[in-house]
Amino acid sequence: MSADIPAKFTGHAAMGPQDENKFNLKEHAYTPRKFDDDDIILKIECCGICGTDVHVITCGWENHGRFPAIVGHEIVGRVVKAGPKSGHKVGDRVGYGAECGSCRKCANCTHDLENYCLNGNRGTYQGKTNDSVQPFTQGGYADYYQASGHFAIPIPDELDSAVAAPMLCAGVTVYSPLKRWGASPGKKVGVVGIGGLGHLGVQFSTALGADTYAISHSNSKAADSVKLGATGFIAAADKEAVLAEHRNTFDILLVTSYQDDMPLSDFYLPLLKIGGNIIIVGLPNSGLPKVPGRALFGKSLSGSLIGSPAELRDMFKLAVEKGVTTWVETRPMKDANQALDDFAAGKARYRYVLVNDN
Amino acid sequence: MSADIPAKFTGHAAMGPQDENKFNLKEHAYTPRKFDDDDIILKIECCGICGTDVHVITCGWENHGRFPAIVGHEIVGRVVKAGPKSGHKVGDRVGYGAECGSCRKCANCTHDLENYCLNGNRGTYQGKTNDSVQPFTQGGYADYYQASGHFAIPIPDELDSAVAAPMLCAGVTVYSPLKRWGASPGKKVGVVGIGGLGHLGVQFSTALGADTYAISHSNSKAADSVKLGATGFIAAADKEAVLAEHRNTFDILLVTSYQDDMPLSDFYLPLLKIGGNIIIVGLPNSGLPKVPGRALFGKSLSGSLIGSPAELRDMFKLAVEKGVTTWVETRPMKDANQALDDFAAGKARYRYVLVNDN
Repeated sequence: MSADIPAKFTGHAAMGPQDENKFNLKEHAYTPRKFDDDDIILKIECCGICGTDVHVITCGWENHGRFPAIVGHEIVGRVVKAGPKSGHKVGDRVGYGAECGSCRKCANCTHDLENYCLNGNRGTYQGKTNDSVQPFTQGGYADYYQASGHFAIPIPDELDSAVAAPMLCAGVTVYSPLKRWGASPGKKVGVVGIGGLGHLGVQFSTALGADTYAISHSNSKAADSVKLGATGFIAAADKEAVLAEHRNTFDILLVTSYQDDMPLSDFYLPLLKIGGNIIIVGLPNSGLPKVPGRALFGKSLSGSLIGSPAELRDMFKLAVEKGVTTWVETRPMKDANQALDDFAAGKARYRYVLVNDN
Repeated sequence: MSADIPAKFTGHAAMGPQDENKFNLKEHAYTPRKFDDDDIILKIECCGICGTDVHVITCGWENHGRFPAIVGHEIVGRVVKAGPKSGHKVGDRVGYGAECGSCRKCANCTHDLENYCLNGNRGTYQGKTNDSVQPFTQGGYADYYQASGHFAIPIPDELDSAVAAPMLCAGVTVYSPLKRWGASPGKKVGVVGIGGLGHLGVQFSTALGADTYAISHSNSKAADSVKLGATGFIAAADKEAVLAEHRNTFDILLVTSYQDDMPLSDFYLPLLKIGGNIIIVGLPNSGLPKVPGRALFGKSLSGSLIGSPAELRDMFKLAVEKGVTTWVETRPMKDANQALDDFAAGKARYRYVLVNDN
């Protein structure tokens, strides 16, 4: 490796499965896997904190965890080494979302659907590498990151690194299904849950031209929702009142909030008009609630998983054109542990981004 | 009423909830409700036997039943009396599917979606009438039928009554969602379950131009499926073998078979390509199986309930243009009880139609 790039990369790792709200991240150095012709190495500028980070460290989603685990998959940095087949050059500013590899050969990978690789995509962290030195990928709460250039997305000059980072996962997670299921002028879209995903959902839905409502449990997000560009704000606590006004009117409900007891049948589905879609992007630990067949008459329930490199590029283009921006609070990378505690406590408005002191 | 129309209509009724496969239909005469300006009375030529008939008589679907119950909602007959606002005239040949009334005022009714009336549609049988003489509707296993002309669909001259009757429920139940979710040239559609609904599903999907596969548990329907126009037949018993060949390739899977343990997550959803839809038109008594969130990534699960008068007219037009036909076996109306027994025993290939000896 070049003189500037250390032989070991250093990050903040969970050394074993953690209880929720007690993360105990420790400094951990690892040797990166063999550098391939299509790889790049980034010097990390910043990395967003995503809900998945907490799920993985606490072994939610039936995830059994590979430890020590450096999490973080909303990574932006500068290319410091570029393989000849990587498609990038030293100095480029690029980012990685939640996927850093896939088979590149299956019917999905060859149709700009690498996020749905039929042979399993490789996670930006916790992904198997088939390398004895580094058997699984380590993420972006760190100083450097190495992966295939195909999954590194150029960051437009107009976007700050800290603003762009959360779009790489949270942003495309909402952009991809909104685009796929037709958020556009004349459509009424509800974004359920105004947090890291939801605040970008409201903005991207609005950017796509849809009439967009922010839906949150209480009124505490009402003022922010207007600032985010929502046509309206709906406090969901009184379901009957909401149904009285909005029953059968939404084309799309994008559900970004985790809830094991998600009110699908008695609230979300009745809010949809005939032909409408509920899109679930927040994944309950226990799976989706059982749906009575009748609740689904004329309506659809859909799922979505992050987005592809092509969608990430389209998303950034739209973000620049329409002024979509992540509401971020930057935190020093060295304080990753405290920032993660605060994130898990629901304090982020709406995304923490860990910043290296480069 | 005119001299030709009796004061009481007579049909074959279940006198109380029945065990499955023992229907004990008895002759039952009832006085029809007050004749309204938009009503018509049909002299029934024939009526198809639908799975719903069995469910209602046996009080499935948490249906509590109103008895004596004359079922049957695939009715074709001649108009013998026509109200001035009915839109029909004496002598017309028309049919009723599963819906005979709705509020006609809500956002759905005023957009050709009467089958999704927000105030509840009125079933062709078992529907509440707000009439003290006839408090609920009685169906088509009978001599006469009275209902609003809006829901009576003209039968094209090209179609035999017995062929047209099952299209009024079974036909539109498959036509409506195939059309809504885009069955068309270039799309790959699978029709799961080759019975009363499925054999029409294969034909309508083919008529809409889609590349259509018939999917049935065993090989017993293979030859029929080819005759129905299917591009291919898939025996679903060996799921792994089917997945090896067809995983991730279907745009639409239309599920017409009732199965409380429907293999949604491990079979139907994996057969879909990204962006594809499972459409459930067979309704399990116990509701849909719980779906793990991951199984739904990039895919949709949809429901559908019969079709609207506008869709029924479109369906008949397509049936005439493309030669879609119901495979029926006619049975004398007086043998309704035996025909229902045989239907419940799975002997119909693929629809029984009860015919009056007019």
